[in-house]
Amino acid sequence: MLNLIGHNYIGGERRAAGSIQHKSLDATSGEALPYLFTQATPEEVDAAANAAAAAYPRYRNLAAVRRAEFLDAIADEIDALGDDFVALVTRETALPAARIQGERGRTSGQMRLFAKVLRRGDFYAARIDRVLPERQPLPRPDLRQYQIGVGPVAVFGASNFPLAFSTAGGDTASALAAGCPVVFKAHSGHMATAECVADAIIRAANKTDMPPGVFNMIFGSGVGEALVKHPAIQSVGFTGSLKGGRALCDLAAARPQPIPVFAEMSSVNPLVLLPGALQARGASVAKELAASVVLGCGQFCTNPGLVLGIRSAAFSAFIEQLGDAIATHPAQTMLNAGTLKSYTAGVAQLHEHALVSHLAGAEQTGKQGVPQLFKADVRMLLDGDHLLQEEVFGPTTIVVEVADKAELTRALQSMHGQLTATLIAERDDLLAYRDLLSLLEEKAGRVLLNGYPTGVEVCDSMVHGGPYPATSDARGTSVGTLAIHRFLRPVCYQNYPDEVLPEALQDANPLGIQRLVDGAYSRDPLN
Amino acid sequence: MLNLIGHNYIGGERRAAGSIQHKSLDATSGEALPYLFTQATPEEVDAAANAAAAAYPRYRNLAAVRRAEFLDAIADEIDALGDDFVALVTRETALPAARIQGERGRTSGQMRLFAKVLRRGDFYAARIDRVLPERQPLPRPDLRQYQIGVGPVAVFGASNFPLAFSTAGGDTASALAAGCPVVFKAHSGHMATAECVADAIIRAANKTDMPPGVFNMIFGSGVGEALVKHPAIQSVGFTGSLKGGRALCDLAAARPQPIPVFAEMSSVNPLVLLPGALQARGASVAKELAASVVLGCGQFCTNPGLVLGIRSAAFSAFIEQLGDAIATHPAQTMLNAGTLKSYTAGVAQLHEHALVSHLAGAEQTGKQGVPQLFKADVRMLLDGDHLLQEEVFGPTTIVVEVADKAELTRALQSMHGQLTATLIAERDDLLAYRDLLSLLEEKAGRVLLNGYPTGVEVCDSMVHGGPYPATSDARGTSVGTLAIHRFLRPVCYQNYPDEVLPEALQDANPLGIQRLVDGAYSRDPLN
Repeated sequence: MLNLIGHNYIGGERRAAGSIQHKSLDATSGEALPYLFTQATPEEVDAAANAAAAAYPRYRNLAAVRRAEFLDAIADEIDALGDDFVALVTRETALPAARIQGERGRTSGQMRLFAKVLRRGDFYAARIDRVLPERQPLPRPDLRQYQIGVGPVAVFGASNFPLAFSTAGGDTASALAAGCPVVFKAHSGHMATAECVADAIIRAANKTDMPPGVFNMIFGSGVGEALVKHPAIQSVGFTGSLKGGRALCDLAAARPQPIPVFAEMSSVNPLVLLPGALQARGASVAKELAASVVLGCGQFCTNPGLVLGIRSAAFSAFIEQLGDAIATHPAQTMLNAGTLKSYTAGVAQLHEHALVSHLAGAEQTGKQGVPQLFKADVRMLLDGDHLLQEEVFGPTTIVVEVADKAELTRALQSMHGQLTATLIAERDDLLAYRDLLSLLEEKAGRVLLNGYPTGVEVCDSMVHGGPYPATSDARGTSVGTLAIHRFLRPVCYQNYPDEVLPEALQDANPLGIQRLVDGAYSRDPLN
Repeated sequence: MLNLIGHNYIGGERRAAGSIQHKSLDATSGEALPYLFTQATPEEVDAAANAAAAAYPRYRNLAAVRRAEFLDAIADEIDALGDDFVALVTRETALPAARIQGERGRTSGQMRLFAKVLRRGDFYAARIDRVLPERQPLPRPDLRQYQIGVGPVAVFGASNFPLAFSTAGGDTASALAAGCPVVFKAHSGHMATAECVADAIIRAANKTDMPPGVFNMIFGSGVGEALVKHPAIQSVGFTGSLKGGRALCDLAAARPQPIPVFAEMSSVNPLVLLPGALQARGASVAKELAASVVLGCGQFCTNPGLVLGIRSAAFSAFIEQLGDAIATHPAQTMLNAGTLKSYTAGVAQLHEHALVSHLAGAEQTGKQGVPQLFKADVRMLLDGDHLLQEEVFGPTTIVVEVADKAELTRALQSMHGQLTATLIAERDDLLAYRDLLSLLEEKAGRVLLNGYPTGVEVCDSMVHGGPYPATSDARGTSVGTLAIHRFLRPVCYQNYPDEVLPEALQDANPLGIQRLVDGAYSRDPLN
C-alpha cells in the first residue's frame, strides 16, 4: 500500500485543516480505497491561489531553460512511478494496466515536448522594431515585444485520462512551460492517483530548485468555484462535461476581472462515409469504425458519435455490418458510477426518441457500459434537435442516412462545433465532395481523412480544440505544443536599454532564437 | 457638401427600412449637420450579420495575396479622401485638420502593413509533422496545422480616433486580414465620417472583386446589442469606455455560444519619476509630461493619468513646475457633448474627494475641457479606492507622493491592469529600481522608459493591450500586426493528400513561407 496522506498541496507544504473527508473508490468493485482525502477549506483554497501568485514573479522570470529542466525532471519522476502506481490507477479508473502504462509514457513525453519548446524559444515570439531617429515627421522609438506567462492558472483534470489530461497533464504542462504557477483541482474519480503524481511534481520542483507554490493541488467537492473566483487566478484550463465547463466559463466571465477559460467539453465527432469508399471497403470501415467506437469503452472526447452516409443498398449493408461488429464487442467497466449513470441515461434518451431507432447492442443494464448502435432521422439534424448535438459519453454511435449530397451538406451545416470531423473517402470522392472539406474546417479543430479520431497525437501540429461547444475558445488547443499560447500574453518594451531588456530581446541575441526584426525573420545579433 | 444618404451597408447594398433617424452634430457649435442617418431595423442587423456569414466561406478561402490587394485598395481609397473629407471629420470631432490628415495616413498605413503581413505569410503559423509509418508501438499519421479566420467579426469604433480606431481602423483591418468579414457599428459621434470611409471600403471591395458582405455597416443606437448576440458573429472588437466594453463582454459571455470580445477600455497609464531623473532633468520632464497630458485635449487611451514620485524638495518643485505648465495650456473643445460632460463629472469627483487636492487649472466650466492637475494621497491606492483606478478621459493628471521605494512598490502593486506604464529614470535609477521593471511588466501591455505613452506606433512590436480593465483579454493587442491573431484559430489536417491541402501546407511550399517541420523551422519544400 502506498503512503498517501490526502492533504492539500499549498506552497510546498501539505495542509489539511478541514473536517470534510473524501474516499476514493475502486471503479470495478465500488469499494472504498484505504485512503482519506481532506477537502480544502476556503482558507486553504485562498492560500493555494496566493501561493501560486507568490511564486509567479520568480517563476516567470526564470530562464526558459530552467523551466525546461523542471519539466524534464517531472517527466523523469513520472516515468519512475512503478507497478504499484499503475495498479492503483487501474483500481481507481478500471482502465487496463497496458493503457495506464501507455498513458504514463504519453504524460512524461508531453512534459519533455514542452521542455523542447522552451529550449527552441519560438514561444517567445520575439519581435523587434529598431529606433528610427531620423524618420519624418516623427522619429520611431525602439520597440521590442515578447510573450510572458499570464499569471497563476487553475487546472481541472479529466476523468477519462487520469494522467495525460490530469495532475501533470497537458494543461499543467503548458501552463508551467509558459511560466505560470498552477493550482490543480484533483478529480474526485482518481484522488489517490492525483496524490502520487503531485508528489512526483513536488520532488521534481525540489530537485530543480523551483519556488514553493509553483505547483499546488487541492482536494474536495465544490472547491473549484472558489478557485476560479480567486483574484490571483488569471486563466483556467478544464476538460470535462459541457455543463461543468460552461459553469466555470460563466463564473469566470462574471468576476470583477473576467478571465479566459479554456474548457474542452462536448464533441460528437461526425464521420462521413462517402460513396466511393463505401463501395471500395465498406466492410473493413465497419470493423475499424466499431473498434474506434468501443475503444476504452468509448470514453474519449474524440469518440465518433455520428456517422453520416448517403442512402443506398451498400450503405444499408454497411450499417448492418457496423451493428454486427458493435454488438460483438463485450461490455466494459466504466470510469466510475457517475459515468455509467450518465451513459445509461444517454442511451435511454436515444431509445425514447420517436425519430431514433435502436439497431444493435444488448440491453444497457448492470454495472458495465454495453456497446450500442442507433439510427436517427436526418430531420433531427435539420430541425436542430439538441439530442444529436451533445455527446453520449460511452461506447455508442448514431447512424444518419441522407438523401444526397445537398442534404449531406445541410446536415453538416446544422452541426455545432467539433473537436474532430472525419471523411472516409476515395480520391474520386474528394474531388466530387471538395466543398465538404471547406465546411468541415469551419466546424472542427481537426479534420481527418481515412482515419479514426480516437488517437490524438501529441505534437506541434495537433489541434485538440474547436468551435463551441467542443471548447469554450476555438483559438486554443489542449493537446500539442500550441497549447502554451493559451497562457502567454505579449509585452512591449519602448526605449529600454539593452542591459535591462529580457535576454530574448537583447541586441546580441544571447538565446540564439529566431526574431522578427524590422519585418524580417532572423537569428542574427543586431549591430 | 458631400453626398451622404445615411443608409446602412448590407451585403453590398444600401438599406434603410427603419423610421428612426439620427443627426450628426458639429462638435464645436453643437449644430446638426445636414445629413440624416437611418437606424438599422432588427431585420437589417440580422441581414448585415447574415451577409457577413454568407461572405465568410468565399472570403476566407481567397489566397492571402488577394486579401492583401483588397487592403491595399482600401488604403489607396482612404488616401484619396480629400480636403472636404478632412473638413467634415474636423466638424464632427473638433479635432484639428493636421491631426486628421495625420490619422488618415496612419489608417491607410495600417491597412498596408496588414497587407504586408498577408504577403509575409507568417500569420499562417504553418506546422507540419510528417507521417512516421514505422514508429512503434503505433505509426504517426501526417499532421499539418495552420490558422484560419474565426468567422464574421463585429467591430465598434472609438470616439477619439474617427479614422485609425474606427470604420477602417485597426480592428477592421486585422479582421479583414485574418479572412473575417466585418459588421461595423458606426459611432454616433462621427456618422458622416463613417459613411465616407465605408464608401471607400466598398469601392475597394468592388475594384478587387471581393464577395458582397465582406464589409457591412449599421447606424443607430442600441443596435450593437443585437449585433453581438447574433449567432453568425464569432468575435467582437471594441474601443471605448469600461462600462460599454464590459456590457458587451457580459452579453457575449451569456450567448448560447459564448464568443471572445477584445475590448480596449480604461487605463490610467501610471508614470513613475525616479530620483536620479528628477535631479537631472525635473524641469524638462514637467514640461514634456504636461504636453503629453494636454495633447489632443487628453483624449487618448494612453494619456498619463497618474504620476508617482518619492517625496522630496525636488519632487515638490517638480509638482509646482508641472502645475504651472498644465495651467498655461488653453482649454480645448472636446470630441462631443458626452465627452465634455463625462470629463466635467470626473474632475468634479476629484474635487470632492477628501484625500485629493486641486493643484492647478482654471475652473472646469463652459464648453471646453480645461487642463487640470490634482494630487492624491497614496492611501487611496493602498486602500483600493476606485477613483484612482479608472481613467478621467481628458486633459488631467494626478500626482501621488510616496514615502520611499517600498511604498512606491506597494502603490504600483495596488494598481489594476494598464495599457502602458512608464519609467522616467537615469541609468543609476534603473539599477536601483530594477524590481520595478518586473512589476510593471505584470501590470501593463507596454512599458516605456524616458518617453511618454501618448504616441502609439503601428508596427510588429507594438502592444496596445494589457490586463483588465485596460482590455478584456490581455492576450490581444488592438494596434500593430499581432492584432490579427485575435481573429485566427488553428485547424489540423490529419492524413490529407497534398492536392486537397491548403497551399500553405502543401509539400512543395508554393507560398515560400516559413514552416515548423518536424520541430525545426524551414522554408524548404518537403521531399
